[in-house]
Amino acid sequence: MGDELSVVGKSVPRIDAIDKVTGRAKYGIDLKMGGMLYAKMLRSPYPHARVVKIDTTRAESHPNVRAVVTINEVPKVIGTIGKLRTEEAKKGLYIQDNIVRFIEDPVAAVAAEDEESAIEALSLIDVEYEQLPALFDPLQAMEEKTVKIHEGGNIAFHLLKEIGDIEQGFKEADYIFEDRFVTSKQKQCAMEPFSTCVADYGLDGRLTVHSSSQRPHVIKIYLAGALGLPVDKVRIIKPYTGGAFGGRDYLIHGLEVMCSVLSRKAGRPVKMSFTREEDFEATEARHPFILELKFGVTKDGILTAMDIKAVKDVGGYGPHAPGPLSNSMRKGFALYKCPNARFDGYAVYTNKSLCGAFRGYGNPQINFAQESLMDAVAEKLGIDPVELRLKNYRGLGEKDPLTADEVRSDGMKECLGKGATKFGWKEREKRKTTVGTRRRGAGMSCLLHTCGGRFSIPDPAAATVMFNSDGSVSLVTGAADDGQGNRTVFAQIAAEELGIPFEQVSLSDTDTEVTPFDSGTHGSRQTYVGGRTVKKAAAKAKAVLLEYASQRINVPADRLKIKNGVIYDVKNPEKGIRVSDLLRKLQFEDLDCGEQIIGVATGVAPSSPPIFGTNFVEVEVDIETGEVHIVKLVCAFDVGKAINPAHVEGQITGGELTGIGYALTEGLVTKEGRVLNNNFTDYRILRTCDVPEIDVIIVESNEPTGPFGAKGVGEATNAGTASAIANAIYDAVGVRVKELPITQEKILDGLDLMGRAETKRAP
Amino acid sequence: MGDELSVVGKSVPRIDAIDKVTGRAKYGIDLKMGGMLYAKMLRSPYPHARVVKIDTTRAESHPNVRAVVTINEVPKVIGTIGKLRTEEAKKGLYIQDNIVRFIEDPVAAVAAEDEESAIEALSLIDVEYEQLPALFDPLQAMEEKTVKIHEGGNIAFHLLKEIGDIEQGFKEADYIFEDRFVTSKQKQCAMEPFSTCVADYGLDGRLTVHSSSQRPHVIKIYLAGALGLPVDKVRIIKPYTGGAFGGRDYLIHGLEVMCSVLSRKAGRPVKMSFTREEDFEATEARHPFILELKFGVTKDGILTAMDIKAVKDVGGYGPHAPGPLSNSMRKGFALYKCPNARFDGYAVYTNKSLCGAFRGYGNPQINFAQESLMDAVAEKLGIDPVELRLKNYRGLGEKDPLTADEVRSDGMKECLGKGATKFGWKEREKRKTTVGTRRRGAGMSCLLHTCGGRFSIPDPAAATVMFNSDGSVSLVTGAADDGQGNRTVFAQIAAEELGIPFEQVSLSDTDTEVTPFDSGTHGSRQTYVGGRTVKKAAAKAKAVLLEYASQRINVPADRLKIKNGVIYDVKNPEKGIRVSDLLRKLQFEDLDCGEQIIGVATGVAPSSPPIFGTNFVEVEVDIETGEVHIVKLVCAFDVGKAINPAHVEGQITGGELTGIGYALTEGLVTKEGRVLNNNFTDYRILRTCDVPEIDVIIVESNEPTGPFGAKGVGEATNAGTASAIANAIYDAVGVRVKELPITQEKILDGLDLMGRAETKRAP
Repeated sequence: MGDELSVVGKSVPRIDAIDKVTGRAKYGIDLKMGGMLYAKMLRSPYPHARVVKIDTTRAESHPNVRAVVTINEVPKVIGTIGKLRTEEAKKGLYIQDNIVRFIEDPVAAVAAEDEESAIEALSLIDVEYEQLPALFDPLQAMEEKTVKIHEGGNIAFHLLKEIGDIEQGFKEADYIFEDRFVTSKQKQCAMEPFSTCVADYGLDGRLTVHSSSQRPHVIKIYLAGALGLPVDKVRIIKPYTGGAFGGRDYLIHGLEVMCSVLSRKAGRPVKMSFTREEDFEATEARHPFILELKFGVTKDGILTAMDIKAVKDVGGYGPHAPGPLSNSMRKGFALYKCPNARFDGYAVYTNKSLCGAFRGYGNPQINFAQESLMDAVAEKLGIDPVELRLKNYRGLGEKDPLTADEVRSDGMKECLGKGATKFGWKEREKRKTTVGTRRRGAGMSCLLHTCGGRFSIPDPAAATVMFNSDGSVSLVTGAADDGQGNRTVFAQIAAEELGIPFEQVSLSDTDTEVTPFDSGTHGSRQTYVGGRTVKKAAAKAKAVLLEYASQRINVPADRLKIKNGVIYDVKNPEKGIRVSDLLRKLQFEDLDCGEQIIGVATGVAPSSPPIFGTNFVEVEVDIETGEVHIVKLVCAFDVGKAINPAHVEGQITGGELTGIGYALTEGLVTKEGRVLNNNFTDYRILRTCDVPEIDVIIVESNEPTGPFGAKGVGEATNAGTASAIANAIYDAVGVRVKELPITQEKILDGLDLMGRAETKRAP
Repeated sequence: MGDELSVVGKSVPRIDAIDKVTGRAKYGIDLKMGGMLYAKMLRSPYPHARVVKIDTTRAESHPNVRAVVTINEVPKVIGTIGKLRTEEAKKGLYIQDNIVRFIEDPVAAVAAEDEESAIEALSLIDVEYEQLPALFDPLQAMEEKTVKIHEGGNIAFHLLKEIGDIEQGFKEADYIFEDRFVTSKQKQCAMEPFSTCVADYGLDGRLTVHSSSQRPHVIKIYLAGALGLPVDKVRIIKPYTGGAFGGRDYLIHGLEVMCSVLSRKAGRPVKMSFTREEDFEATEARHPFILELKFGVTKDGILTAMDIKAVKDVGGYGPHAPGPLSNSMRKGFALYKCPNARFDGYAVYTNKSLCGAFRGYGNPQINFAQESLMDAVAEKLGIDPVELRLKNYRGLGEKDPLTADEVRSDGMKECLGKGATKFGWKEREKRKTTVGTRRRGAGMSCLLHTCGGRFSIPDPAAATVMFNSDGSVSLVTGAADDGQGNRTVFAQIAAEELGIPFEQVSLSDTDTEVTPFDSGTHGSRQTYVGGRTVKKAAAKAKAVLLEYASQRINVPADRLKIKNGVIYDVKNPEKGIRVSDLLRKLQFEDLDCGEQIIGVATGVAPSSPPIFGTNFVEVEVDIETGEVHIVKLVCAFDVGKAINPAHVEGQITGGELTGIGYALTEGLVTKEGRVLNNNFTDYRILRTCDVPEIDVIIVESNEPTGPFGAKGVGEATNAGTASAIANAIYDAVGVRVKELPITQEKILDGLDLMGRAETKRAP
């Protein structure tokens, strides 16, 4: 009976696999309740307007309509969990006004006996708008003084931070590198649209909402505030969820609030589902950034100064105005141990659709800029790009410059080493071919992400482990699983910690009524923060169990271990007691005891450990068409410990695909505030045939604060793809495209410019 | 800010009142699920038979039938929680054979697309029976050696117990009193029949059962055993329940097991509901007893010896074979401090319908006999019946002769005093009137019941108190509320202990997946055992909260109290912090903390305290028709502390009505094993117009081990009614009817006998 792991580290199938593949799993759209009404939303046709008057009389007299709600009756709920920190900040969560700030901003909603009637009734609502001047360009909006999208002006958030001495840093530099980068408004494109809610406001004043939010426990508080209820009177139940990627963080704009008020008015359950078009136009997307970077570097390639200027377009509301801006600073500062750095960033309102959380949360933006510029540094100084990263990255024992959080696990060297080997980095020049119009090139980049929000936002987690009398375990957790599989990972962690078979752990539904507070699934936190909390709860339960076992079999508790459901003396493995026997005795045989073994853990993690990663990409670029073909992508991620390697690989592969889309094809296109590509014909995500060969390397550095050494991998996986691809394209054809996505046109433009430059030089 | 109670002791409305009165509350029969099938049961037409062959071919080929299950495939689950104490005992829970033991014993069940098809399909099942000799009389069954209803014979359980020295006791007596009493087979007659179940066996091997069981957590274990599943894979969800009274203890014979197997076979949810007739014929009723009592009494009326012989008819299975027999001994021994007592009791199988748990659980039977005989003692010795009880009852500081549990709270004197005064006991003779053929008389009796099963069966309880960040509380409990209102009482106890408003406590659904183990609602245990567990969980949460508060406001924790959601310094009440402010700081403001305050309590109660009660009844008996009219009923119960006086009054009134029915009208009538009165036309429960004036006196003795002094009242309330009524009838017309129910015929027979006796004497 050794100490090897029994289920952690194994690719066990997901606990919900059968439900999902057989179609028994119920997603939001599948929900039906007795007496349920169907709701639809009336949305603004204008990017910026005052709603002067709404006449719902005609809609209300539609024979199938049961309730109507308007913008005048409901608050918009805008903001992240940070707003719960003080009563004052919390007030700022709720905006109640009659202004619409982007095309498709909700104006009213109707609940009817069927969806067709609800749609009909929308056309019977008469709205009088006073159009207001609209702002679409963030740089213009920043300067604008007269037209104010929000009362406080158009700057949603300003972040200015300096570490070290930036001027001195540039003085110490031998070279200065500067450039400007622009990123796109990528949409999460989850398989299931972000937008079904069933609200049921009981006559007893209790509200039950079925919502696929990533943060059921947080939106419970938000909704309680919006509806003026005590928190215990709101219950959020999360159905199976078809992907989130940040898009289900908190509430969906207008959805749950309007649905709940409609239910309160109608006295019946109300269901509202957005179409895919509504999802594209009226739910959150990745913030587009404009980034100006300036690096000071010694001739040996050591960074001495980093100056970052950022403007982030948050759209009409900016629920995540500070977050991704701040995070791009944090990741920008943390990746390299540059002693002098400055970040000057603005989050700016425009009359465009919403931006919010999206996998990576500011990191893909800064990484694209930073790692493109690092590539230029390497080229200029003649240092191998891998070598340049190794010289500068912030590794083991170093501290984060902003949080002082120490790097306790560092797999960057291994990522770079294994990645380069697998990719054949040293031999890349040999593979450079010219086949017709196609030019081959290779690029790489590095990245650092972190797990959880320990130093930036409230990040509580909790879990309850309850032993059943046969030794099986019910694990009660409110940690949302959006499809990534953290429920399976939790069961693995609990089983491992408790020494019982994986099959003997069941997980509760994600239901805020009965699960302890978990702040939600975001920031790659569930495996790390959630997992360590589950482990802690299990350890507490185990400690009580072993104490009882110690009394029963007369062996000191610290000499007892559990394996395969048997508690045994490590010094005399023959001596032991089955967990099930002990529990039966405690709960049933001993009438004086009757104790159920329960372990509860709540709190935050001690750290927000870095996860390191690297991407190596080989591309072929067609210089006639600008078409980019990814020949090969090798990526390596230091995940601490892969609790479930198949899940980790799935996360990485999925993230890389999002990263490739970010690099080459994706981004909402707007004109005068209107989203032009609101469907999968016009918005191009990768199709199966677009997917290149992806080699995934899992590196395990054993994070000491993580459960069994694990860190969270989700968000890192798409943070460094675009930069590596951009660098590979540059390597192939000499064109450095600084604006995402890197379309064929931009490459051709670049080639064209080069041609002109060469033409200029030629004579 | 004094120490007076804020919500305990107040008749707050039930937390589920609005749901219930508006019809939104969903009972078992209301449940519907997508793809749900409807099941019906095929039942034995014979009281005792071997099922030789079942051919389900024709039923299975019915176009709407989706699954068929037979007696050959499923175990019968027979037994109480005591069977979970050892692995060996647990095996005895499951009987799998092809014998049917009473008319209507399940033989097969069918699940079809609709109920009509299921009923049709039943007639397509071909069953070949081999009839076996049937036994209907328990005394005959005891002696019978050849015909065995179960393998081990017809005696299900034998209990022989002696305390003191019974022979010596009789020697010390001046008088010996002896008599024989027979009780009836009363049916619980809950408003909602005992018999709807929806089972949903998922493809992932997890079984969810919606069942109104009084013991969701216990039947979870039972069902797991019956289906060969780990306990964590079975989930019981309890819908709103329309009364239980013991009839929903554990599983309903055949219901949940067959329904679950049908669902497993069909791969779809299956609903089965019994008709009222099936409820009468095939679910459990109160055990009929034959009791022979012999008392030794001094001339001063002091009991010196009690010899009790009991034969209990358990019907075909005897799931509660030991329980009510043992309990009648326990209550018989405990009520009076008679030093010498013997109980010799047999539980005997007959081929009749099931008997099981029913409010009082053996106490109404023994009380009817014991208190009838005590009445004879009082008459014979010329001692006032009240005085006789005061001389003999086991009061404060005395110990239970079997468990050594000390009487820590004793309201018997107050019950007798206040009851007698309110009733006008001393003036009763003055009210004796003779109006035409109607004769008036008064009678009284005493009773003792206990709360919970601390010394007889495993009796664990558990509760979890979780604070929300606004100071409201979610209380997670698996304690079944069958309609009596313990959920409201728990909310009161939690609110009182925590010092927060009652409205800010919400209760979880009764769902075994997420609630900690509670052994169920039985034995008047929820207010006492459940309530003290809730209080303990709340106290644990409060202790953590006050510790944090102490750190924040710099006042020692032991000087802090909470009132109206404010934590304050008792020495300086101006100094304090709002609970909601503190919690917000802990969970959200302080990024280093993030702790949710959670209190968990599990275990058993230290005692099973006695609840005392008395009934005073005045009747008019018509000597021509034998009709009994109850003029007035005054009852007094020592409930320790009435957490919710309106609930207590409701419990008492309801229990008294059951007691009156037990005394005068109720009881299943069988002929050759067939229930003749299987409906409310033939089985007479009290109608509104039959309900007499009932004066309820609540006595509060403050039980030190109870939550805020409370004890449980439910079961005591019908234990002493029949004896008091019998005594009043005797007082009115001189007829002592010793067999329940006391029908008009029996009174007329008695009068007739007296008449003949007088006639005999006359000449």
